[in-house]
Amino acid sequence: MKRTVFFISDGTGLTAEAMGNSLLAQFEKIEFERVTVPYIDNHETAEAVVERINESARADGQRPLVFDTIVKSDIREIVSKANGFMVDIFGTFLNPLEQELQASSSYTVGKSHSIGNESTYEKRIHAVNFALDNDDGARTRHYDEADLILVGASRSGKTPTCLYLALQYGVKAANYPITEDDLDDQQLPEVLRPHREKIFGLTIEPERLSVIRNERRPNSRYSSMKQCMHEVEEIETMYRRERIPYLNTTAYSVEEISTRIMVTTGLKRLR
Amino acid sequence: MKRTVFFISDGTGLTAEAMGNSLLAQFEKIEFERVTVPYIDNHETAEAVVERINESARADGQRPLVFDTIVKSDIREIVSKANGFMVDIFGTFLNPLEQELQASSSYTVGKSHSIGNESTYEKRIHAVNFALDNDDGARTRHYDEADLILVGASRSGKTPTCLYLALQYGVKAANYPITEDDLDDQQLPEVLRPHREKIFGLTIEPERLSVIRNERRPNSRYSSMKQCMHEVEEIETMYRRERIPYLNTTAYSVEEISTRIMVTTGLKRLR
Repeated sequence: MKRTVFFISDGTGLTAEAMGNSLLAQFEKIEFERVTVPYIDNHETAEAVVERINESARADGQRPLVFDTIVKSDIREIVSKANGFMVDIFGTFLNPLEQELQASSSYTVGKSHSIGNESTYEKRIHAVNFALDNDDGARTRHYDEADLILVGASRSGKTPTCLYLALQYGVKAANYPITEDDLDDQQLPEVLRPHREKIFGLTIEPERLSVIRNERRPNSRYSSMKQCMHEVEEIETMYRRERIPYLNTTAYSVEEISTRIMVTTGLKRLR
Repeated sequence: MKRTVFFISDGTGLTAEAMGNSLLAQFEKIEFERVTVPYIDNHETAEAVVERINESARADGQRPLVFDTIVKSDIREIVSKANGFMVDIFGTFLNPLEQELQASSSYTVGKSHSIGNESTYEKRIHAVNFALDNDDGARTRHYDEADLILVGASRSGKTPTCLYLALQYGVKAANYPITEDDLDDQQLPEVLRPHREKIFGLTIEPERLSVIRNERRPNSRYSSMKQCMHEVEEIETMYRRERIPYLNTTAYSVEEISTRIMVTTGLKRLR
């Protein structure tokens, strides 16, 4: 059985999607057809959305689910007349929050993913550029500026994690690949030693690492099970010897890796 | 007046943050102190969070706001005993959804930002690698594989947008900087012509572009107001002549640029 789901917002729709999907994830046996309709911020676009929802209800023979994060009550009212099952975040929580905070909502549209605080936004973009410029050990001379230096075997997930940390949290993360040459003495590579307190290690199951490396360089020594096992073992030994905090990324998404790093290191999201 | 806010989750906390912040954005005059506590998935960690909330209530002389996305009702029940103002997403919406869907929640913890569908997750990571490998016109031979090719003046926001599109939507986006050399004949650069239907243009106010360029190369011809005005004018003329869809990014965040591109191009989020 397939149910259509609408995510409707006066902004990007990212919040409606995040909230809706976290609820829908609880119903694994139902197949959902998802439609995101962002930037619904006037009467005309709202009426058009009502039409789309109603049409979908007719086509499916069943009303769609509608997750909305529309701030303005007049727009929300129009959408609420559609033939859908409404999950209305602002309608449900804004009033109680006004009461609790003894303050009125400003009813400002599309705030949560806009530029907002300009200097914070610029710092996020700077953090992205920092991650790109300091990717893969390319440069080590900016490590003083880094909030975090991710280390680990080649293809253990360092680069996507650095980029996510930059985009989501504004964290300036460099990354340094630990190669065989670094492992001879089971110590932290020399270039990293002055920055010990910023270092976080990634590790990964050798089986998974071998699969990932095979995509880049099939049937090479680099991607062989033997080589992957050797590197992972040596690197984990080094982490333990040097008391570097580390995480096994095998079963984790980049979002999970990043939030776990934030918790472990105590780094703060930029505001 | 400062209010403490807790975002509590059995997963990453990203959904609780997104939803909470979209509501808090409506109260611009109140200063919020935000605390995210992810991975609360057993009785001990839940009890510890209750202690933290209660302590914060004592310290502030006012109960904190608590946004939670805890799936399991026994854990949620523990947290709900804290001295906080509870905004409980699953407690509020899961039951009505079960009714509407005629299905029981699976009460699976921390689903919404986990790896989930493995092949989808791998495609997102592939998309990140694609964006990195095809950044800044570095290579054009993979344009056949691209879902999207972003074009625009140097520093108009192409790279962060491509990375966000990859991480958030799994879209494989290359980017190509339009330089003065490309502008001589006011036509689409030759290397882009076979891929016309994948091209999306970015533009930006010359004043803003000049500020951004000055950070990279201060007082250069490249960052001069005259040069920025010239490039932007020529590029916009080319977009119009060639009927390339385009967006002025000056006032938009990377999230807004990305969602607007998704709407305009009709690209679909990977599932």
